[in-house]
Amino acid sequence: MLPRMLTLAALRAAYGAGATPMDVVEEVIARRAALADPAVFITPTPDDALRAEARRLMQDGPANRPLFGIPFAVKDNIDVAGLPTTAACPAYAYLPAADAAVVARLRAAGALVIGKTNLDQFATGLNGTRSPHGAPRSVFDPADISGGSSSGSAVAVASGLCAFALGTDTAGSGRVPAAFNNLVGLKPTPGLVPNTGVVPACRSLDVVTVFSGTVPEAAEIRRIMQGEDADDPFSRPALPVPLPVAPRIGVLDGAEREFFGDSDAEALYDAALARAEALGATLVPFDYAPFREAAALLYEGPWVAERLAAIEDFLAEHPEALDPTVREIVQSAQGMSAVETFRGIYRLQALRRAVAPVWDAVDILMLPTAPTSYTVAEMVADPVRLNSRLGRYTNFVNLMGLAAIAVPAGFAASGRPAGVTLVGPGFSDEALVPFAAALHGATASGVGADRAAALPLAPLAGQVPEGWTSLAVVGAHLSGMPLNRELVAGGGVCLRATRTAADYRLFALANTDPPKPGLVRAPGFAGPGIEVELWALPLAGFGAFVSGIPAPLGIGKIALCDGTSASGFLCEAHAVEDARDITAFGGWRSYCMKKQAGPGDW
Amino acid sequence: MLPRMLTLAALRAAYGAGATPMDVVEEVIARRAALADPAVFITPTPDDALRAEARRLMQDGPANRPLFGIPFAVKDNIDVAGLPTTAACPAYAYLPAADAAVVARLRAAGALVIGKTNLDQFATGLNGTRSPHGAPRSVFDPADISGGSSSGSAVAVASGLCAFALGTDTAGSGRVPAAFNNLVGLKPTPGLVPNTGVVPACRSLDVVTVFSGTVPEAAEIRRIMQGEDADDPFSRPALPVPLPVAPRIGVLDGAEREFFGDSDAEALYDAALARAEALGATLVPFDYAPFREAAALLYEGPWVAERLAAIEDFLAEHPEALDPTVREIVQSAQGMSAVETFRGIYRLQALRRAVAPVWDAVDILMLPTAPTSYTVAEMVADPVRLNSRLGRYTNFVNLMGLAAIAVPAGFAASGRPAGVTLVGPGFSDEALVPFAAALHGATASGVGADRAAALPLAPLAGQVPEGWTSLAVVGAHLSGMPLNRELVAGGGVCLRATRTAADYRLFALANTDPPKPGLVRAPGFAGPGIEVELWALPLAGFGAFVSGIPAPLGIGKIALCDGTSASGFLCEAHAVEDARDITAFGGWRSYCMKKQAGPGDW
Repeated sequence: MLPRMLTLAALRAAYGAGATPMDVVEEVIARRAALADPAVFITPTPDDALRAEARRLMQDGPANRPLFGIPFAVKDNIDVAGLPTTAACPAYAYLPAADAAVVARLRAAGALVIGKTNLDQFATGLNGTRSPHGAPRSVFDPADISGGSSSGSAVAVASGLCAFALGTDTAGSGRVPAAFNNLVGLKPTPGLVPNTGVVPACRSLDVVTVFSGTVPEAAEIRRIMQGEDADDPFSRPALPVPLPVAPRIGVLDGAEREFFGDSDAEALYDAALARAEALGATLVPFDYAPFREAAALLYEGPWVAERLAAIEDFLAEHPEALDPTVREIVQSAQGMSAVETFRGIYRLQALRRAVAPVWDAVDILMLPTAPTSYTVAEMVADPVRLNSRLGRYTNFVNLMGLAAIAVPAGFAASGRPAGVTLVGPGFSDEALVPFAAALHGATASGVGADRAAALPLAPLAGQVPEGWTSLAVVGAHLSGMPLNRELVAGGGVCLRATRTAADYRLFALANTDPPKPGLVRAPGFAGPGIEVELWALPLAGFGAFVSGIPAPLGIGKIALCDGTSASGFLCEAHAVEDARDITAFGGWRSYCMKKQAGPGDW
Repeated sequence: MLPRMLTLAALRAAYGAGATPMDVVEEVIARRAALADPAVFITPTPDDALRAEARRLMQDGPANRPLFGIPFAVKDNIDVAGLPTTAACPAYAYLPAADAAVVARLRAAGALVIGKTNLDQFATGLNGTRSPHGAPRSVFDPADISGGSSSGSAVAVASGLCAFALGTDTAGSGRVPAAFNNLVGLKPTPGLVPNTGVVPACRSLDVVTVFSGTVPEAAEIRRIMQGEDADDPFSRPALPVPLPVAPRIGVLDGAEREFFGDSDAEALYDAALARAEALGATLVPFDYAPFREAAALLYEGPWVAERLAAIEDFLAEHPEALDPTVREIVQSAQGMSAVETFRGIYRLQALRRAVAPVWDAVDILMLPTAPTSYTVAEMVADPVRLNSRLGRYTNFVNLMGLAAIAVPAGFAASGRPAGVTLVGPGFSDEALVPFAAALHGATASGVGADRAAALPLAPLAGQVPEGWTSLAVVGAHLSGMPLNRELVAGGGVCLRATRTAADYRLFALANTDPPKPGLVRAPGFAGPGIEVELWALPLAGFGAFVSGIPAPLGIGKIALCDGTSASGFLCEAHAVEDARDITAFGGWRSYCMKKQAGPGDW
């Protein structure tokens, strides 16, 4: 009855058709039992506990529960009350009394935890082999690594066990496993989602992430998780940052195009760039070198001391309890000095400044999520060097405070998947969604293990992000007209051209420079509707724009031909008393063109 | 000819009356030679070099030089091309080829450097005695410390040698010497003013400051210095933060009122609070404890390692070159670990979060600049403990990224001065100015050494800060009316009540909920003018407000009775066609009151 992939859309369709949370839970229990990969879960939620949760939900009902009956998995470094938190280190395990803040928010929304998933121990790794519970495998080849550190979470979603799963991401742990399992990996801006109840890797950098089948669904989960939490001092309020609908996209160039000999991965990256261009993006080659330098700081600089700070006492008492590779990495911070730490902070700050010109030239970076992948055998034989390669394009992102969404990029002929990651400025989380969704939609690579699953195409344009407003312009602010630069300067983005409702008249105002029209509503009048452009502006840009408008113009609400309304230009009545009615032209642009074409004053 | 205190105002008056830069320079040279305190300068600008600079300025003329012919002094940890930078450590001295970024900006504006001033070595101290060049003294008593570390800069201004001087401030070095010399000490938000060409103390915290006779003059200097510099990765663009005209002021309370037995200082603090209240502020006691904990981190936490990072190689080669107290402090960071550093960063972040409720309850903190002062003899006898006391109310400010302005708070009967500091949120630098100026004006304590100098009273209200706009509201948004909360939610501040120009009519709109009026301009009509309130709103709040206004209302420009105009409510003409003209009431509030007072529909 349920499709192979348990997307939110599929589950909601099933609930709409009469399924109950118990039906879904029984299906999840059956699928979990049938799962071939034994390394996905560390602690599955017991069958009876899952059924009890389903019963509770059925009693409470779906009202005010946007995730009613939606199953999800939780990486085992994130607390779920009643299940042990182990961080893949059995000797470290504790039984949390409370849910992590994000888990509490998701459960309050009606979601069900199906279990705690495997990970690279203490979230230290990008490959998925550093766990005493075994290495989860890519759903496409049991020889291949799943990616890590959020290995089990990615495989759980890609195997159709749940609608989404939580990961954590310091170096790339919420993105690399998405690439290797044909999933979306949404990594919020550091601080947007609280870390209360999460075992720290690098406390100043860690971010809780979402694995999901589609970008809009991942964003929906993120919106439920986000928001300051008093118990996480690093959590911050969102300050949404906009991006244009047709972005300038920074792409790898020259010597920085490094795929470690994997020509399939390189070809898949190039194909993704071509799709981005077809969607209206402008590709802009940029120099990745300073980003790569910042990436290297994560393990070669002082931040590795955060991993030591997180488990220093435990490590001193139980050195033998750690995975040898993880232990070696964490111990490398012993003897690192405060002076070195500040020098690392200065270096990072200098690199942040050094890349400022890149961010002036592009809106989004589009990078391979990982440059290549490996088999478990290869990874185990060379665990540090190959892991470091996996993080080549991910390690800098949290150090620089950025937002990222990893999306699938299709498959090599071998059947191995690849991914690309869209990296945007801090707090562009919401603004990244439309383009990421469109790019994923154009990829037609299915969802998780189901390469044939259909993916709804997300609308690319027409959405007004949170913290923005729409504005209908009618005269000198239209694209190509003299004052259009004011909208661009305010951070504006053109959404579409449309018309007003029929009951508007347009007048050519006298004594305006540059010439401007006045739009006046005339209830009962049946005219052609006046041409307008609908723009989106960030609220501050809109505020600055409105405050600069001279009399007799102003901003009020304009009724549009489709029955909606938007902020738009009004004109004081006294100013049009002797003005020429140009309604018949259908818009200011037509009027101006005809005026220019004719001789004299026309 | 020139007054005892060389304020910008006094010098500009002199230039306006025909004085030349050479006249001013000769006076400065004479005053500098006559200065009784031998410890103020480390390297005075040579007389002939000053005269040459004056000649150059006279050739170039005053056009585009807002600081034409204004003399200033520079703390000797800030580069001035051609003069050695010593940081009060002769063995460390180097001859910079270029001016520090701030010095270059001030000289480009026409200001003249009169010399490099003494400081606590490597800016490590708040008292002014830690220098091989001797201890500058408070201008009010040669037995008393000047405060530090920017000791010479403060004494140079307070002695009437120059209009302003640059200090630096990590723990309070730009504020404490202001208090002990009856000056304004303006400390920008960290990052607002670039540190390029400044010897670091704690590179992530240091700020260049201004000593000056008045708050508006200090702010004028800061505006010329501020702005990002590509060579200082910690420099940031300003994101101005507003403050209300009548602020809620956080004041010390209970056990946190610590003056170390100095009842004179406590009485002067209380007198300053009374002045603040008389200016319209609301006094709000708050718990200083978490701020004090943050303050302690500056020397007891990892940040002292930044001082070591700045001079590690020099210290290793020339340990004997350091002042013994400074050496002991800097060496205390040796052996401090990376793990301790991150723990300190976590602790600071937790304290920043812990004080968030304070910032919800108050707009500005008003603290004693220093809790007491000491003689040089007392300080030398107990150099670390007494210095630590001096920083009790200053050390947390840069760690928490805040802005501050220290203003004089009058004199004890003994003749010893005190100061208070207004501490505002990061980037409230501009918004702090009006209240700080008003508070200083109300103090009537003169300027620097001249206790009788007159200080112009600055306007307290009516100013619209940068990044804000003004809005005239006429109906349901007036104070106390149903929609006023929308302005408050948008961060709005009421500037004043006023009236429109005479040619406006007011209508009571039908079918509005809550009831609203419509304001319509009627050219030629001679009415009473309609009551409006002028509010200031941050642009984003204004944008959100405008985007939420329903038809038939909108925002355009309203002409006010004083001939100015402001953004304000418009009404589409069709909506008032059948509406009742209530112009005769003079305003919506009068109309509503009369309506409520009468029976029935009135």
